Amino acid sequence: MDIIRQGSPVLFQYNQNKKWLVTVSGDETLHTHIGVIRHADAIGRPYGSRITTNKEKYLYLLRPTTYDYIMKIQHGTQIVYPKDIGYILARSGLEAGQTVVEIGTGSGALTTALAGVIRPRGRVHTFDVDEGFIRIAEKNIRRAGLSKYVVQYTADVREMAEMPVSDADLAIIDLGDPWSAVPQVRRMLRGSGSLFAVCPTMNQLEKLAAALTENEFTDIECTERILRTIEAREGKTRHSFHGIGHTAYLCYARKAYFERDGERAAD
Amino acid sequence: MDIIRQGSPVLFQYNQNKKWLVTVSGDETLHTHIGVIRHADAIGRPYGSRITTNKEKYLYLLRPTTYDYIMKIQHGTQIVYPKDIGYILARSGLEAGQTVVEIGTGSGALTTALAGVIRPRGRVHTFDVDEGFIRIAEKNIRRAGLSKYVVQYTADVREMAEMPVSDADLAIIDLGDPWSAVPQVRRMLRGSGSLFAVCPTMNQLEKLAAALTENEFTDIECTERILRTIEAREGKTRHSFHGIGHTAYLCYARKAYFERDGERAAD
Amino acid sequence: MDIIRQGSPVLFQYNQNKKWLVTVSGDETLHTHIGVIRHADAIGRPYGSRITTNKEKYLYLLRPTTYDYIMKIQHGTQIVYPKDIGYILARSGLEAGQTVVEIGTGSGALTTALAGVIRPRGRVHTFDVDEGFIRIAEKNIRRAGLSKYVVQYTADVREMAEMPVSDADLAIIDLGDPWSAVPQVRRMLRGSGSLFAVCPTMNQLEKLAAALTENEFTDIECTERILRTIEAREGKTRHSFHGIGHTAYLCYARKAYFERDGERAAD
Amino acid sequence: MDIIRQGSPVLFQYNQNKKWLVTVSGDETLHTHIGVIRHADAIGRPYGSRITTNKEKYLYLLRPTTYDYIMKIQHGTQIVYPKDIGYILARSGLEAGQTVVEIGTGSGALTTALAGVIRPRGRVHTFDVDEGFIRIAEKNIRRAGLSKYVVQYTADVREMAEMPVSDADLAIIDLGDPWSAVPQVRRMLRGSGSLFAVCPTMNQLEKLAAALTENEFTDIECTERILRTIEAREGKTRHSFHGIGHTAYLCYARKAYFERDGERAAD
Repeated sequence: MDIIRQGSPVLFQYNQNKKWLVTVSGDETLHTHIGVIRHADAIGRPYGSRITTNKEKYLYLLRPTTYDYIMKIQHGTQIVYPKDIGYILARSGLEAGQTVVEIGTGSGALTTALAGVIRPRGRVHTFDVDEGFIRIAEKNIRRAGLSKYVVQYTADVREMAEMPVSDADLAIIDLGDPWSAVPQVRRMLRGSGSLFAVCPTMNQLEKLAAALTENEFTDIECTERILRTIEAREGKTRHSFHGIGHTAYLCYARKAYFERDGERAAD
Repeated sequence: MDIIRQGSPVLFQYNQNKKWLVTVSGDETLHTHIGVIRHADAIGRPYGSRITTNKEKYLYLLRPTTYDYIMKIQHGTQIVYPKDIGYILARSGLEAGQTVVEIGTGSGALTTALAGVIRPRGRVHTFDVDEGFIRIAEKNIRRAGLSKYVVQYTADVREMAEMPVSDADLAIIDLGDPWSAVPQVRRMLRGSGSLFAVCPTMNQLEKLAAALTENEFTDIECTERILRTIEAREGKTRHSFHGIGHTAYLCYARKAYFERDGERAAD
Repeated sequence: MDIIRQGSPVLFQYNQNKKWLVTVSGDETLHTHIGVIRHADAIGRPYGSRITTNKEKYLYLLRPTTYDYIMKIQHGTQIVYPKDIGYILARSGLEAGQTVVEIGTGSGALTTALAGVIRPRGRVHTFDVDEGFIRIAEKNIRRAGLSKYVVQYTADVREMAEMPVSDADLAIIDLGDPWSAVPQVRRMLRGSGSLFAVCPTMNQLEKLAAALTENEFTDIECTERILRTIEAREGKTRHSFHGIGHTAYLCYARKAYFERDGERAAD
Repeated sequence: MDIIRQGSPVLFQYNQNKKWLVTVSGDETLHTHIGVIRHADAIGRPYGSRITTNKEKYLYLLRPTTYDYIMKIQHGTQIVYPKDIGYILARSGLEAGQTVVEIGTGSGALTTALAGVIRPRGRVHTFDVDEGFIRIAEKNIRRAGLSKYVVQYTADVREMAEMPVSDADLAIIDLGDPWSAVPQVRRMLRGSGSLFAVCPTMNQLEKLAAALTENEFTDIECTERILRTIEAREGKTRHSFHGIGHTAYLCYARKAYFERDGERAAD
């Protein structure tokens, strides 16, 4: 049995829109519009249990997953969404033990998802120039308990003479001008290694795709993923009325060597 | 440098539709309509290099990823696609070291993706009653080099008195009547553990969602993912003309305990 | 030149979300949060002109189209949306002079669109049992200036012995249980005539499709239409972040005679 | 009763993929892989009847709608699809009696749909520079029986000093460089009149939207429509496996006068 104790991370979930990610502390209480929640009520219960607020509302005690941490990070900053993160994981075939390079840490949502997969022996090397984001990301990564699998750099790889990483299995570029970092990213990737760029606009896809070909990448694939929720209820199953919008387009590619003999294998 | 040698797995890729997954053997040749390919030409080259066929067509030598193995499995049997697998990974937050239960091994495509993530210390316990599928899956899993992380069972969990697995972090149900296995799956999951069912039809979603509520699951979410390819070319960027169809709907849920004191925690 | 005069219908449009459909009256003023609008300012101007409010906001003076009337009707009641109405018009090939039967008038949005196409010599015969809706629809149809092309019935066709219409070119069913009216609708349609049912749920589609086959309809086609808005701006073109949800599924079919000699041609 | 006679247009439909649009001629026979079809078998039957081929296959005798003519035109040339045509009709609120200008006749698919709505008193003025297309379109429009509502011009409006049309209610631009015809189209539209451009690429949308603002158009809206087919069958309802691709993006706008007093109302 998997019991909630003092200090355990718990997602108090009322529904998809009302949930609280907390570290249980016996003497704390959470005041919400669905009532008061005493952390103490959760202690000693197995994950998955439900308790009731003083307003008689059910609240589920879930064990936070990477997904829950990411959705929490979402609030306030623009993040890469699970529907897109999932495609990055599946298309690149990311696995435990691999090395990942991320240009543009942002709030650390994607960093968190990547670290969850490559641990314990793999590493995510993430770069950002914004001190503010770096601190936010550090906090978010720590909260997800993944700090020791992530190496954060306060630097602009485009201005670094020496690349601190080599033979990476996957590189992520999340910059407004993704094409500008392609040469540096190429040097950090192993031959046939995967690259993913997060692009909010079609113009970025267009400029990036051209830069990838120039920089000897192959298997270039640009896609978007539309996630639709279905309300499955007896006799009245239908898609949700609330809409599904745009998050980001993704551009995938793999590092190649165009020279017939691969003598450029140096970079 | 990451060099291709005798016995190395290589994806010979001409384009998205023409690619061959092989184990390099110096004396073998591949006869295709884009020309003859001599395995020997690949030996000694770094992954990512490209060679030319005797018809002067470029062919890239890529290191196979789980994605490549899965797309290969696709041929002939119905599989769970990367766009859906990715969502399963991201939504459940699957991580290295976790335990997965899969009811319905099929051709092993999803099994392969799951094993790639939970290894080295995690395990995928997969059940099927069809000897034929079990053999196909075994072959596919072995080819992806993941056999030692997968435990295959030739059994119908719905008829087993004792569940061979407990405290699983994630359970997948890929059966025509997914609801029929919910009680058994529940017993194999830890509290708050994730469940995903692969449902080709809306009717399955509807019956399953009802069964999940009856069996004390929460956070139930039914979705579909539409993957669209974008052709990003200078001055003429647009979505691909070729269509995107339906693969499967997915139903997600987490194991809960409805009894106020979780005394049913036994199951 | 097409000049706005006293009594002219005008759509005062600030943007997609802020627009007012009015009949110009020299002594009226419209008080909005973007400022005060004096109808008199519009008089004498050509349609398409823009005026400024006392808060210096631009406001366009557009000539209302059926689309504008329909979007106006939307507020408050559930309507059939232009994206779906358009498909009904194009798939059925509705033309001026044709006869349409509508079971379920609702607020008259679809009635308005249909009348706009079949006039001047065609007619829309629309049935509803709800006095309240009938009055709302009457008002909306009148406002669009289409009353004389619409015949409203306060009746439940399923309980009528004699059908008041025959040889209709198109029939629309917008009821919670569309299958229940199929026999009556069939009697009002000409051979090969088109039928469209507006179905919010998949269950309705499923039951209706079966009823249509039983009642000798062919060319049955169930569809949904997803409308996505694209923000085309120099250097940053992308789909809109705000989502696109579900409105209704549509089921199309054409009246056939299964008896080899069509002797049932009577109905 | 609506009986098929010598010379009647009939759509012989086996299924969505196998259908033949013919003018019934007593002595003709149609040889297909589902058997031989004698036109004579259709004569005297009501539209909607079904006959059997000598291979015992059912064939429905449908009265062709504009939709059927358009789908027929499709074969061989790129056309504007019903899902898009429908949106053009519904968004612009096109009605009987209105005047339409079409720049780029192409094969006449859209021309046919527009003529079907504006007849009998309205007109579609369509321009093309390609003699070949003009002939194809003429044939297609004639086959749909709409010739007398369409005026074809073999000309490039961008090089015409005098515009042959004025106060049009709707203008369609279907050119590779739609922005190049905006000034001429503006002169042919009435104030507040609607414009629709058919754009296969995002780049066209982007350049066109800028040109529309420069040329004093308002209510600019770029969209795409995704049409999905649903197979509604008892107990196994789901979206079709076959995909839905891209056809064209649409850009809508209405003619405005930015000068405060509309003195440019001349154009």
